[in-house]
Amino acid sequence: MNMDIATVNALPYEDFVNILGNVVEKCPIITASVWAGRPFLNLTALEAAIGDFIDALPESGKEGLLRCLPDLAGRELQNGTLSRESLLEQAGVGMDALNSAEVLRMAQLNEKYKERFGFPFVICAQMSDKENILRQLSERCQNECKVERACAIKEVKKICRLRLQSLVLTDAPSNL
Amino acid sequence: MNMDIATVNALPYEDFVNILGNVVEKCPIITASVWAGRPFLNLTALEAAIGDFIDALPESGKEGLLRCLPDLAGRELQNGTLSRESLLEQAGVGMDALNSAEVLRMAQLNEKYKERFGFPFVICAQMSDKENILRQLSERCQNECKVERACAIKEVKKICRLRLQSLVLTDAPSNL
Repeated sequence: MNMDIATVNALPYEDFVNILGNVVEKCPIITASVWAGRPFLNLTALEAAIGDFIDALPESGKEGLLRCLPDLAGRELQNGTLSRESLLEQAGVGMDALNSAEVLRMAQLNEKYKERFGFPFVICAQMSDKENILRQLSERCQNECKVERACAIKEVKKICRLRLQSLVLTDAPSNL
Repeated sequence: MNMDIATVNALPYEDFVNILGNVVEKCPIITASVWAGRPFLNLTALEAAIGDFIDALPESGKEGLLRCLPDLAGRELQNGTLSRESLLEQAGVGMDALNSAEVLRMAQLNEKYKERFGFPFVICAQMSDKENILRQLSERCQNECKVERACAIKEVKKICRLRLQSLVLTDAPSNL
């Protein structure tokens, strides 16, 4: 049911934001901003416009963006308030099926990370697995704040790419 | 049930964003960004931090912010998907009790406005009334785009101020 880019380009902003508004979690302002840049040549161009908007945010804005993301295996997963997209992503790597020791371990590591950086640990779960997530969560906690912020924003962009690909047809291969 | 500023300053980012995240409609990234600027001296300082963040957005971002707001007496009001805050504000000026001729008139004016500017008509409803809203909607449609964008952002800030005042205690009068 993915749209082609021509369909995307023809959407009024309300539909554009309704459909694509959560490709960056809880930041419809980003999708709503890039709408003005239509027509997009292809999905890559739309993705680039979103990436450019994120890159142009002040550092405070990048951290603000990260603070709009939920913890992995955290409160929102437990109490059922994750966005549809986040739920699918977290469930896809078994974050909804951790045993109680694993839930506790994730909670402790998440808290430590948030205490250190002031934003949540972000990783593109779909490109990872449970073991890697736990390892990254431990290891990245050692990073310098600036390095880690950049790392987290990179993960946001990976998540964004996969969410976009679930909604918009990827670019046709060129004359194969 | 308003919090004092000391309570606000003590909130972890998750609570801060949960409680204050919609003072700019559907833009929790803004609240989440200014959280790093704690402690705020008073409500005025918090409001100023939000205003500064908005002012620092590129013009595309300001328009994106506006596109996150619902129409007055529009689709979201009809189908019950307005945010709690927007519903209260719109109902407060009778937007939920228009007769069918008024609904049609609002829809026509909203469409004309959106076609011209690419973002919805925004007004601080609580500081207005039905007649004024209709008049402003007609009149502001004549503005140049740049002027109108600035006007709409001013209204966003008024709405933000009132939403903040409903959550945080206003500054104590100084030694009267």
